[in-house]
Parts: sequence; C-alpha cells; structure tokens
Amino acid sequence: MTYCVAITVDEGLVFASDSRTNAGVDQVSTYSKMHTFSGEDRQIVILSAGNLATTQAVMAQIARDVNQGAPLHIHSVHSMAEVAEYVGNVSQAQGSKHGEAVARAGFSVEATFIVGGQIASLPPQLFLVYPQGNYITTSEKTRFLQIGETKYGKVILDRIIQQSTPLEEAARCALVSMDSTMRSNVTVGPPIELLSYRADSIKLEHYLCLGEDDPYLIELKRYWNEHLLEVFRQMPRFQWGQMPLKSVYR
Amino acid sequence: MTYCVAITVDEGLVFASDSRTNAGVDQVSTYSKMHTFSGEDRQIVILSAGNLATTQAVMAQIARDVNQGAPLHIHSVHSMAEVAEYVGNVSQAQGSKHGEAVARAGFSVEATFIVGGQIASLPPQLFLVYPQGNYITTSEKTRFLQIGETKYGKVILDRIIQQSTPLEEAARCALVSMDSTMRSNVTVGPPIELLSYRADSIKLEHYLCLGEDDPYLIELKRYWNEHLLEVFRQMPRFQWGQMPLKSVYR
Repeated sequence: MTYCVAITVDEGLVFASDSRTNAGVDQVSTYSKMHTFSGEDRQIVILSAGNLATTQAVMAQIARDVNQGAPLHIHSVHSMAEVAEYVGNVSQAQGSKHGEAVARAGFSVEATFIVGGQIASLPPQLFLVYPQGNYITTSEKTRFLQIGETKYGKVILDRIIQQSTPLEEAARCALVSMDSTMRSNVTVGPPIELLSYRADSIKLEHYLCLGEDDPYLIELKRYWNEHLLEVFRQMPRFQWGQMPLKSVYR
Repeated sequence: MTYCVAITVDEGLVFASDSRTNAGVDQVSTYSKMHTFSGEDRQIVILSAGNLATTQAVMAQIARDVNQGAPLHIHSVHSMAEVAEYVGNVSQAQGSKHGEAVARAGFSVEATFIVGGQIASLPPQLFLVYPQGNYITTSEKTRFLQIGETKYGKVILDRIIQQSTPLEEAARCALVSMDSTMRSNVTVGPPIELLSYRADSIKLEHYLCLGEDDPYLIELKRYWNEHLLEVFRQMPRFQWGQMPLKSVYR
C-alpha cells in the first residue's frame, strides 16, 4: 500500500509520501514515491500510488520524453493542468501495454498520481490524476489531495488544514497524518519523504527523508500520542441519560 | 453508510452506532442499528451494518424464532459464540432469499453484525459476524470491533483502548471515534446511540441517544477539536534537513 498527501496553502505547497511497496505480505520493498522536476521557470512534483510497474514505466517515459525532445514533455507544457493531462495520458498508455495480461493474472495495472507545483507566474496548483487519466484539483475549502490509503490520515487534515495555514504547520500536519496512517496500516511505512515549496520561488524549499529511527519522527509520535491521551483524559465526562431502551424483543 | 463500534474492557462492554442509512444520496433515512435482547440470564446487543432489508429481515427472524419457540433462538443458546453462529445462519438464510435478484440489479444483500453481551456466568464477549456467516472475536491486544465505515474512527481507538481502560473512558472514546467518522463521511450521522454494559451485571447499565443538537455532543466536538488544535500548535517544530533531493529527471 501507499500513502501520499499534498497540501496547498497561501504560502505554498507541501508533499509527503511513504516508501513502502508490497506485492503480498512477503514481498515488501522500499521505493521512493516522490519525483521532482526542476526547470528554470518551473518546479514540479509527482507523487505516485498503485501498480509499481506502471508508476515506474510512467516516470521513465516522462524522462524519455524530455531526453528525446518529444513534442510534448514536462518542460514544454504551459500549465500545471497540462502536466496533469500529460501524466494522465502517459499513465493510460503505459497501463494499456500490459493491462490485459495483468488483469488475467488477477491484478490491476492502475496507478494514481498527485501532480503539483508551479510554472512561471501561474499560481501553484495541485492535481490528482486518476487511473483513467482524468483529474481533479483542489478548491477554496478542499486544500489537500490524498492517494493510496487515505482514510486514517484524513481526520487530522480535515481538522487542521485551511487556506491560511502556515507552510511549516501544513508540513507538520502532513507528518501527523502520515503517522496516523502508519499506525493503523502496516503496509504504509518509512522512510517518509517530506517536501515544501514556497509560492513563487520556483525552487524546492525544504526536503526531509525520515527513517523509522529518525529522532524527530520518534519525538513527534511520542509528543502527539502523549498529548492526545492527556486531552482525552481531561475531556468533560458525560451524564448518562435515563432514556428508555429500545428493543426489538425483550 | 454506517458506523458501529463495540469495545470490550475489563469493566464491561460499550456499544455505539450511528443511525443514518442511505440508498443513494437522495434516499437518506434514520434507523436504529442497535438492538438489545434481555433475559434473566443474558444481556445481548446486536449492531448491524449493510443492506437494510437484510438487517431488518434478520432482526425480524430473530424475534419470530423466540415468539414461535423455534428449536434454536437467542434465549435458548448457551454462549455468545452460539449467538454469533446463529445470527450468521439467519443472515445467510435471509440474504439468500433475494440475493440473486438484488445482485442482478447491481446491489448487494450483504449485512455485517457485531454481536456482544454476556450469558450467565460466562465472560462478556464480542463477535463480528461476516456476511458469509463466519465470525471473529476480540483478543488480548485487539479490544474493539468495527463495522461499516471503520477507518476514520479507528485511529483514536488504536491510541486509547486497552484492556484496563475504564468503562466510562471507553464510552467517551467510542463517541470521539464516532465524531471523527461523521466529520469525514457525511453518510454517517446522528442520532448516535451509546450503550454500556458492566461485566456480570446481566443488565444494561447506561444508554444514551444523542441527536445532532445534543449539548453534550456539541461540547465534545468543540472540546476535542479545540484541544487537538492546541496540542498541534504546541508541537515541536522540526529542523529541515539539508539532504539532497532525489529526482528522476532534473
């Protein structure tokens, strides 16, 4: 499994991804799911989830298109929406190569991507590219996109992330979201990659790769868990009501 | 959708369920998913999720079996495991009546149940009954069972619930778990039913039915959200590393 999240706030963008891949519980590996593309007028980040062969084929094709000067490549497109469209097309093309054979074996070639960044003076943007090649972006009220094992980590994002959230806070929230997911799903695992992009800088601001035994990650887990328990314990007790019990048969 | 959770701790059992059912977003109704059966030597609670027609048919059959003095009914079985086996059989029988016709229409008759309680001097127990009729119980380390929309609410249960957790704390944790789920999935909704059973009492201890505008539920949401944000804001900031960026193509 995989968990990737990208957040857009006024100050910029945050990306986080785990590194665990598994094809069955006895075939667990570590692969980066975060890919960056830097150009003079653009900074683009792609996060990937789903079939590893497809995501690798897609990333290889993106690199080949640049090297071979294809008519359309990641450094020639004019907007982040075009990047999403392009990644969707490459994903469809690569998936269809082996789609039928893989489906016959009972697996799926599907891959999902988060594409984010900034091109020239256009605003920074995030897109989620579905396996079918179509895509969505964020809105004023929906400031993050997730792929992979999304539910465990969504709760804290829903509570914290707003348009005005500072970039550092958004990055920390992405880590807490990642921690919650790792706690509840063992197939999401470290190292955790975390990246921040400050709006209009056209360069990556900060990058962290946190291993399982990283002191900050350990401290974050400890702090969060301890204080959550404390808040919970100090929560107002409720008064049990005296309402009658409903019953189908008593 | 549905969210139900049952917790077993040394002091007893806790059950919580939402009341929203939906067949498409334009057909949303309110139904209790909590069913209690009290006898001289037993206290049994059943929580239900899945196809509403199937769960209603199952609960009706359980009542009929008692009224008609069937060879096997919920007041004649000798252990909670037998209750789980019996509910699984009734569920299979009711589901199979309309299974093919419903499948042809593109729906599923499947229903899942949590069965819990205590019979005579046997220890209190919880079982999760799958749509196929088989079932699982809890373990020393796994003190809760969930059905329906389980992931959003699992994070807080994973952190709080242990064998030694007091009954009142377990009940409060079930409510926080419910609140997190309602926040992230609009098809899970109030009123919330909450029930506690103290071990060896053979009677239901407390029951609460909390509507959307219930003052305690509002206070719990406010307290939890406010303090979570506070803990988050006071969290140790991290030092961004200076590690090199990896890139497929730069």
